[in-house]
Amino acid sequence: MSKPALVKGTRDFGPEEFIRRRWIIENIRSVYELYGFLPMETPAMEMLTTLSDTYGEEGDKLIFRILNSGNFMEQVPYPSSHSGSWEGDGLGSLAMARFLSEKALRYDLTVPLARFVSMRAGELTFPFKRYQIQPVWRADRPQKGRYREFYQCDADVVGSDSVLYEAEFLLIFQEVLDRLGLSEDVLIRVNHRALLQELCLWAGGETASFSTFCILWDKADKLPQEKLLEEFVEHGFRAEYIRTMFTWQQELLKPEQSFEKAISIVREHFREQGLLSHGAEALAEMWRYGPASRSSFGRAPIVLDLSLARGLTYYTGAIFEVTPKDGSGSLAGGGRYDNLTGRFGKPGLSGVGISFGADRIYDYLLSKGHTFADTRAPAAALLLASLEGVEVRRLASLAYALRHNYGVSTEVYPTTARLKKQIEYAVRKKIPFVGIFGPEEAEQGVITLKNLQNGQQDSLSIEAAAHRIKESL
Amino acid sequence: MSKPALVKGTRDFGPEEFIRRRWIIENIRSVYELYGFLPMETPAMEMLTTLSDTYGEEGDKLIFRILNSGNFMEQVPYPSSHSGSWEGDGLGSLAMARFLSEKALRYDLTVPLARFVSMRAGELTFPFKRYQIQPVWRADRPQKGRYREFYQCDADVVGSDSVLYEAEFLLIFQEVLDRLGLSEDVLIRVNHRALLQELCLWAGGETASFSTFCILWDKADKLPQEKLLEEFVEHGFRAEYIRTMFTWQQELLKPEQSFEKAISIVREHFREQGLLSHGAEALAEMWRYGPASRSSFGRAPIVLDLSLARGLTYYTGAIFEVTPKDGSGSLAGGGRYDNLTGRFGKPGLSGVGISFGADRIYDYLLSKGHTFADTRAPAAALLLASLEGVEVRRLASLAYALRHNYGVSTEVYPTTARLKKQIEYAVRKKIPFVGIFGPEEAEQGVITLKNLQNGQQDSLSIEAAAHRIKESL
Repeated sequence: MSKPALVKGTRDFGPEEFIRRRWIIENIRSVYELYGFLPMETPAMEMLTTLSDTYGEEGDKLIFRILNSGNFMEQVPYPSSHSGSWEGDGLGSLAMARFLSEKALRYDLTVPLARFVSMRAGELTFPFKRYQIQPVWRADRPQKGRYREFYQCDADVVGSDSVLYEAEFLLIFQEVLDRLGLSEDVLIRVNHRALLQELCLWAGGETASFSTFCILWDKADKLPQEKLLEEFVEHGFRAEYIRTMFTWQQELLKPEQSFEKAISIVREHFREQGLLSHGAEALAEMWRYGPASRSSFGRAPIVLDLSLARGLTYYTGAIFEVTPKDGSGSLAGGGRYDNLTGRFGKPGLSGVGISFGADRIYDYLLSKGHTFADTRAPAAALLLASLEGVEVRRLASLAYALRHNYGVSTEVYPTTARLKKQIEYAVRKKIPFVGIFGPEEAEQGVITLKNLQNGQQDSLSIEAAAHRIKESL
Repeated sequence: MSKPALVKGTRDFGPEEFIRRRWIIENIRSVYELYGFLPMETPAMEMLTTLSDTYGEEGDKLIFRILNSGNFMEQVPYPSSHSGSWEGDGLGSLAMARFLSEKALRYDLTVPLARFVSMRAGELTFPFKRYQIQPVWRADRPQKGRYREFYQCDADVVGSDSVLYEAEFLLIFQEVLDRLGLSEDVLIRVNHRALLQELCLWAGGETASFSTFCILWDKADKLPQEKLLEEFVEHGFRAEYIRTMFTWQQELLKPEQSFEKAISIVREHFREQGLLSHGAEALAEMWRYGPASRSSFGRAPIVLDLSLARGLTYYTGAIFEVTPKDGSGSLAGGGRYDNLTGRFGKPGLSGVGISFGADRIYDYLLSKGHTFADTRAPAAALLLASLEGVEVRRLASLAYALRHNYGVSTEVYPTTARLKKQIEYAVRKKIPFVGIFGPEEAEQGVITLKNLQNGQQDSLSIEAAAHRIKESL
């Protein structure tokens, strides 16, 4: 007998949890479709050659590898006799994995998209706009709010460099956040890689590492400012410039600061310092294409945040992130990347995309005490109680009529039991109506319909009962 | 540069394929919900201790194992010096896998259900009725129609032994097959393990192996009868009895044979041979609870098939299978199993369930030349063409109004191009309307709406255009 257990870092979505997450996902899906994105799916497993060298060394370690099938040990070298161990032969676990595994679970939905587009380039219509809502897997150390399996909800446009799409993604962020009731809790943070690159060069000189610069900025919401400054200095960035950037940051992120104003502030500062601001020009154009022309009343605020870096190395233009104002993790993100399909032999396809983390949003809504009041479980609408004196098969027949002639989702209680017990079953399962069909009702051809919400009870024809139920849903 | 490739035995579902498979899945989902089943999901990965020893030796080999993360090689023993190899130490690949892997991809949805129910027994309401639609993975040799990733669509009732549920599953089979337009192409085959056990004892004696008996019957639709007979005889079954069973089979499967008649034929033959027929009684009761009381006109025929065995060892009562009349593979199956949660320390929970293979159904429909005419892609309803003299941002603003004020899913062509090219884009993406908003329209505040299906073209206000589009969908 084995004790049943989940894999650490994963969780079940029982009916109640599933329906809540589905509500989140359906909101995202419907907005994606409103903007003309088409759904697709790719397999959970990808060839390791497709995934590796994409996510950096740290990312590579987080890929779940599939053990080869069959006589896979034939591929594994014995340790050489002089060293007596694999480590002695210079083969760490990651190196040994090459002999044991050639497939892996997808780590995100962007690389599978790049593979898909590369394989089907000849038959797709560009710009290709697809959305994809599927789980991904990462071998992270499990901790609160960090899972090893989680749903990503991605939308991407491949094959156009029009800034129209960046603008549309900002509107999509706002619309989804509105539908989820999150507009007042979050910020939509925007930055541009070109701005970051200028800042890196300015503060760190020609030899400064851009990836270090980005990694340090990613810590901005985790470290006190003085500590962060120290780290910048340790990595060769000049303290006075970093301090100046901190002041700019503060100015840009002032509450009620408009995006237009923020852009002009950046332009001004960059001009003064002799920096190129074409990143800011691109964001200004994006703004005109999208949010500028709509009322932003009650919508999630869009802010220019020079410290937004987003670790992933493939971004090359605008970058986005949606974070709660209280700073706990990110709920969505995205950006423009050029040439993602280049490594598969299809250069020149530019892309831009975003991703909502359905599990992050789910946890965030729960942490806020969201009641998910709108998400009525798709439980049956009616429970037919089973009473002495009426055979279950007569109930089965009645249920059939209710389901198929009237479309009323119906359950039949499978055994005769005290009515009280059957009503409790309905209450626990959130079934709103109980139908009593005892010997008397059977004789008269009626059903006694009990509304469990208000206790109302009426004797009705089958048809009238069906209509009563359907009206109330 | 790596050549992009799929893992063998898996496939992408691009927009068109995805929408077709979704149509299949949504038909199944809606019928499950009509019968009061609640949705749930479990993680892709399960602990190997949960999965192993469940699917038999053959099944165990088909489980995809996840390579442990971190320094997993620390767990792997070196070959002993006297043998110099793992094989020499009696460690085959399957044995070595224990040191390399503790997690695996789920192989079906039934074992995860058993684990879930065992872990949450205290909080669930029984009978627990859930449906679950997720992919499963099997390390099968890829071949036509056999995939290593495929969607199963399961519904199960746990915690009741009422035959009402067997009856409801037959109705669910019929309803789903109706909605998929498959009623005339398939048979719903039914048998009962108790009947099989009696036949095995009768034809093979006390020492006969029941699992061999089932395995041989599973070949009935693949082998010529004489060849099958030989195999039965080779395994110690008596030729005359097997021959008799063949004659019974023929009688039962006569076209137009009613299920009631088939039951009475079985009863009669069993009585003559001194066999117990309580399996037939159970099926007779099931029949009265369900299909007997409904019109079966135009519905998929339900037949009693004594050769239906279903390999999985955990079935204990009624068993079902839906197969095309032309005999190619099965599209759905199921049955009753007792005590599935016993190995997790929760004995006494009986269950019954079915599963549709969404990928099998998808392939079958395609092979029949199904056009999926009902499955309009959720492409945008309108493409706003982008013409010289009107800035894209004015189009973006118009698109915003159409999407958010009128709910019209809209795409904007991202760059000015010849109108012909833009219309071609709409045609290829199956977008039914093109909206022309050139300098003239912009001045008059109208839109020229072109219906690509019939070529009709009208100058309309934004509101009128939105209504025209919504009416036509």
